[in-house]
Amino acid sequence: MPFEVPLGFRFAGIHAGIKKNPSKEDLTLVHCPGGAVAAGVYTTNLVYAAPVAVDRQRTPSSDIRVVVVNSGNANACTGEKGLADAREMARLAAAAVEAKDHQALVMSTGVIGHFLPMEKIGEGVFVAARQLGSDEKSFTAAARGILTTDKGTKIASRAIEIGGTEIRLAGMCKGAGMIGPQMATMLCVVTTDAALTPDAAQAALRAAVDDSFNCISVEGHMSTNDTVLLLCSGRAEARGQRSEVSRKESPFTTHHSPLTGSDLAQFQTALNEVCIELARQIPDDGEGASHLIALEIRGCRSKDDARRIARTIADSALVKTAIAGGDPNWGRIVSAAGYAGVPFNPAGVDLSINGCSLYERGAPVAFDAKAVSTSIKGSRETSVVLTLREGDGSIRFWTSDLNVEYVRFNADYTT
Amino acid sequence: MPFEVPLGFRFAGIHAGIKKNPSKEDLTLVHCPGGAVAAGVYTTNLVYAAPVAVDRQRTPSSDIRVVVVNSGNANACTGEKGLADAREMARLAAAAVEAKDHQALVMSTGVIGHFLPMEKIGEGVFVAARQLGSDEKSFTAAARGILTTDKGTKIASRAIEIGGTEIRLAGMCKGAGMIGPQMATMLCVVTTDAALTPDAAQAALRAAVDDSFNCISVEGHMSTNDTVLLLCSGRAEARGQRSEVSRKESPFTTHHSPLTGSDLAQFQTALNEVCIELARQIPDDGEGASHLIALEIRGCRSKDDARRIARTIADSALVKTAIAGGDPNWGRIVSAAGYAGVPFNPAGVDLSINGCSLYERGAPVAFDAKAVSTSIKGSRETSVVLTLREGDGSIRFWTSDLNVEYVRFNADYTT
Repeated sequence: MPFEVPLGFRFAGIHAGIKKNPSKEDLTLVHCPGGAVAAGVYTTNLVYAAPVAVDRQRTPSSDIRVVVVNSGNANACTGEKGLADAREMARLAAAAVEAKDHQALVMSTGVIGHFLPMEKIGEGVFVAARQLGSDEKSFTAAARGILTTDKGTKIASRAIEIGGTEIRLAGMCKGAGMIGPQMATMLCVVTTDAALTPDAAQAALRAAVDDSFNCISVEGHMSTNDTVLLLCSGRAEARGQRSEVSRKESPFTTHHSPLTGSDLAQFQTALNEVCIELARQIPDDGEGASHLIALEIRGCRSKDDARRIARTIADSALVKTAIAGGDPNWGRIVSAAGYAGVPFNPAGVDLSINGCSLYERGAPVAFDAKAVSTSIKGSRETSVVLTLREGDGSIRFWTSDLNVEYVRFNADYTT
Repeated sequence: MPFEVPLGFRFAGIHAGIKKNPSKEDLTLVHCPGGAVAAGVYTTNLVYAAPVAVDRQRTPSSDIRVVVVNSGNANACTGEKGLADAREMARLAAAAVEAKDHQALVMSTGVIGHFLPMEKIGEGVFVAARQLGSDEKSFTAAARGILTTDKGTKIASRAIEIGGTEIRLAGMCKGAGMIGPQMATMLCVVTTDAALTPDAAQAALRAAVDDSFNCISVEGHMSTNDTVLLLCSGRAEARGQRSEVSRKESPFTTHHSPLTGSDLAQFQTALNEVCIELARQIPDDGEGASHLIALEIRGCRSKDDARRIARTIADSALVKTAIAGGDPNWGRIVSAAGYAGVPFNPAGVDLSINGCSLYERGAPVAFDAKAVSTSIKGSRETSVVLTLREGDGSIRFWTSDLNVEYVRFNADYTT
């Protein structure tokens, strides 16, 4: 499937001098000349960064024109001055694309506790505005501009047909690696040319995040800056009608009507897929990670119960180091479930790793430890399925293993 | 202060063949010939080990005669057979000291999911019973028998005078290292010749555990086997009257009256000190740990709030790796507090590391990063003080840093 850039958006990613390495993009613009319905979901950390404070007030919105993102500095724990800087950064981005102040959103990721280099950002947004483009190359540059220690860009897209209209979704996110090396931050922008009302966009985004970004963990340390944005330009056109003209510029194209009912449900499915595809890439690119651990927790009283158990297992250093070592050390997984704070009958628990059953109805079963170990070591992804006998609640959750490289990376600092 | 073994107890630690290395003790007996009041505090993990199930039913008790402990096998996740084995292990220990079945308690630590080698344990308890002694050497051998990957024994003692009677407390515990390398387990036995009622002993132990073993963490993974026992022989004598005879054997000495009121409060203080001294040794000997991190959380609405914040900071891999690397990376600490689930005003937060203020009233302060880094690197213990402005609740909490050695140890397994 070729990469599909949704209509109604332009993208740019440039090096503005926030990061030291001049070959690394550190400033991204996402421009929606005709305005986009925008929804946002943010960190629940009490200690949230200044850009989160700004965006939270501005979403959901029916008319966002630009999103400006910088990497290399989180603008978190920076007090009143940091808040003023975030507002100014949004104002500068709006000015660069001739929009109004309140039509801009802002995101930052990087070192905590340092003030933004406002002069560099002020210059950068105008440089970036001159490079805005609606092609795949521009989208990819923008996706690079939000990265910190990620190994590469994290992108996902879909094209679906709803009622004769070809609707495209394209998202970019950054990984939970460390930066500076400081806090991890998860940032994501999903763009679509579907038309949604602000309320529908907000509800759709929250539902999608619930099954994607809220189902991943690298080390369980919640960032001050996590932000997921959904931007809906409403510029989708009938399949086959997409011309080079509409691809390049479409500020005055008429919006199609906001999606409702089964059309909205179809969009939701595509949005979920895009968000899950993006979210999985984050632990897969966790610091030093050699395995993506795909947890499936079944048979719980509720999805929330399943999520709590999944998160507790995902955040156990013992589980993560065992998988890193190719060790089918199931006692660590079962015991982590036991302290998740979710009531269940331990005698009703089954566990399998990579399809091999290790534990059934609360008792060990004989298994070929060497074969399971070989299967863990031989594959990038390890599947862990834990089944309770409490109900129908289930969840999928992704995390990374814990390697020596992770510790090295996060212990060695500039001082 | 010379080591003081409380009167009324005998100890032994031997190699019974559960561990492969013949120079490692793996079976311990604590014998109280005249009976002891016994209190217990156990893991809250839903997936608890068989010996925990047995002891939970038997404490508090007014007449426990023997505690048998094995290392090298946790007898956890072993189903009905494991439970029968734990009961049989207690029965064998009782038989070895000519006590009744229900007068025995049992503890296990080691590999999860394997059945106990009952033949070795059956022989071992009788061998150990013949070696029981009330001197320091016997106590130390017993303290070695409960260890797994600990670097050395973890022992603490106090002698206090209450109403003319010299009361001694002596405790042993094992660290949260990995075994097998499997689950960590925290086991502790505190012996005292003070007389306490079973209810007073249970209340005193719970209060002491609350400020000691419930204030430590290595990687936050709760064991299936955690057990802390308090055994009170009531055999304390007036200072100066302790003879070699009474030291050696005193099953028929009259108990003094159970402690109450201010006497009990005085005992509680000594018990807290012993438990804190033992508990601190566990993260100090965490796998690969190069720093003991001493957290102090102040100014919370309650002690429980302070504990939740402390535990969240203590379990953050980012905080632990930063200290391992000598990095005064305060953003990680403040942001961890922010997701502890405790409401507070982020603008009222102060933070200091090793006495140096880094963050005041929610804003960064200029500090000499090199000097703080040098102070972290130059000392085994790192002090972190986080102060909110919400109330008077405070807590002290200890954890270990996270090193490459920890990961190596827990990733490399037999498979």
